[in-house]
Amino acid sequence: MSKAKLYPEILTQSNFESFGEVIETENNSFYLINDGNTARYHHLSTIDIKESNGKGIISIFRAQPRSFPMPVLLMERHPLSSQTFLPKTGSSYLVLVADSSQKQPESPGELKLFIANGNQGITYHRNTWHHPLLAIKEISDFWVIDRKGEGNNCLEYFFKPEQQTSIIYNQHFTNHTEL
Amino acid sequence: MSKAKLYPEILTQSNFESFGEVIETENNSFYLINDGNTARYHHLSTIDIKESNGKGIISIFRAQPRSFPMPVLLMERHPLSSQTFLPKTGSSYLVLVADSSQKQPESPGELKLFIANGNQGITYHRNTWHHPLLAIKEISDFWVIDRKGEGNNCLEYFFKPEQQTSIIYNQHFTNHTEL
Repeated sequence: MSKAKLYPEILTQSNFESFGEVIETENNSFYLINDGNTARYHHLSTIDIKESNGKGIISIFRAQPRSFPMPVLLMERHPLSSQTFLPKTGSSYLVLVADSSQKQPESPGELKLFIANGNQGITYHRNTWHHPLLAIKEISDFWVIDRKGEGNNCLEYFFKPEQQTSIIYNQHFTNHTEL
Repeated sequence: MSKAKLYPEILTQSNFESFGEVIETENNSFYLINDGNTARYHHLSTIDIKESNGKGIISIFRAQPRSFPMPVLLMERHPLSSQTFLPKTGSSYLVLVADSSQKQPESPGELKLFIANGNQGITYHRNTWHHPLLAIKEISDFWVIDRKGEGNNCLEYFFKPEQQTSIIYNQHFTNHTEL
């Protein structure tokens, strides 16, 4: 196990802003529709799939829980579209992203680890480096929105041994508990 | 209350086919991604939002439960896009649609009522007549995918008094129980 360690911080709309969007009712306003029967929290995220005549598709991902500490072997990004994960089973999950500035298009920059609660969906902006799904405690299902179309829309970066980092996660971690 | 009554039938991919798509793992195949950690149930539904330079957006709808029997006052449809509802809180809900053949573009045809379980998302095809959200037992949240863009994308039809129908729903209704 390498020496560099990543600990999660609580995901919020503001600390995720440079990576994508957090989709939640919390701290967002709504208006009433359907004759007052429904509150609409409008346009919390935008789907970016139209590049090269792409179309938006919906899939379901069923993720196995990870074991921790977990070595981070790779990151990926989608140069032609956003990608959205919406919790279906309401489980918390980890979100690992990296600085994706254009200065280093070939490799992820500084890593940042968040813990999302089961009421938070996320959209990764096009080109945001991110780790594949990180379920924590149980098998976790997500509704996933991404793109079908021409072109290579998945780039991967495999860390060299000297770059490797581990995710530290304590099962008893809760919103305001120290790890 | 009018005399015409609607009773729900169990929603399946096949009985909903002419109205839209049912998004679920049930009876669908998957393939493994993320080094075997995730099962991908790929492309269960297509998002149709590109008309007139529209873009896809994600919102959250929070629906109040209805009281039954419930008179059906109106139906609506979206001529420029699909609309997708993905259960967020895992509650069952009712889905009321109508024959939307091009022979009668101005008004809904025969009504059809389904009960969806909380693991089933639905996409209404563009132009499918449908009733606004019908939560049953408790306040129910949905992730919603629809379109932002130019043009009038919501048409409503209000039933005349002699056309009115009621939804009959028994709280104790379960998958294989007679109402």
